[in-house]
Amino acid sequence: MTGAESGADHPVEAGLNARQRVKQRLGDAFGLTDYGVNRVTLAPGVWSSIPHFHSREDEFIQVLEGTLTLVSGSETRQLGPGDCAGFPAGLDRPHHLENRSDAPAVYLEIGSRRPDVDECDYAGEDLRAVQLPDGRRGYARRNGSSPG
Amino acid sequence: MTGAESGADHPVEAGLNARQRVKQRLGDAFGLTDYGVNRVTLAPGVWSSIPHFHSREDEFIQVLEGTLTLVSGSETRQLGPGDCAGFPAGLDRPHHLENRSDAPAVYLEIGSRRPDVDECDYAGEDLRAVQLPDGRRGYARRNGSSPG
Repeated sequence: MTGAESGADHPVEAGLNARQRVKQRLGDAFGLTDYGVNRVTLAPGVWSSIPHFHSREDEFIQVLEGTLTLVSGSETRQLGPGDCAGFPAGLDRPHHLENRSDAPAVYLEIGSRRPDVDECDYAGEDLRAVQLPDGRRGYARRNGSSPG
Repeated sequence: MTGAESGADHPVEAGLNARQRVKQRLGDAFGLTDYGVNRVTLAPGVWSSIPHFHSREDEFIQVLEGTLTLVSGSETRQLGPGDCAGFPAGLDRPHHLENRSDAPAVYLEIGSRRPDVDECDYAGEDLRAVQLPDGRRGYARRNGSSPG
């Protein structure tokens, strides 16, 4: 029903793990604007993102197929179909999902779309996703410089 | 993880079909505030709601278990696990879900939470969900009177 797009572009070495994620933007396909809904497929070995948390956006995930490992700090938890997790805005505990199984895994992710600017902090890296001076979204080091 | 609550209270006869729906408020349980996420269980014969549309709120549903019938005007469509549907705010085509199967069905529903006031129009009935003069949510007839 809608084109799939591949890959995250985090400009750090750990970002390689998320390059193969595949997202279908379902909410956009239905014309929804208040929040984003994506169907995400992770092949074995692929990550959802590098560990991160959001300043302003609530995040919710629902596993649809396969087995995912939720990594939050030093804790891990296996999630299967029917399991879900929520990450309120401002919760400064980084998290991400990894497919450590040998089969594809699929989940639904829901995220806020707010008029104020969300910043995403990739806690294990010197990296944040921010609004750049020209208004576009991009990446910055903690000292404000470009990660190149 | 969170208590379940039963039943819709639409004060019309057709509302009886939705009295047995069971909702778990997952988003609230995780402390999310930007949007609502509910896990809804419909036993055989039970409806999600009476036919309706929202003025300001986007709605998205994802089937998790069982088979549901999406009813939108004179059209019906069967939805199973993996299927989803979206209803943008202001789309004045009424819809609801019915469980016409002989087994329970489970779906995830996501709805906006906006600071401006949403009105829900139950298109087949002389009924709207509105903000009452005292600030609470309630029902009104189209002429503004109380449905009693």
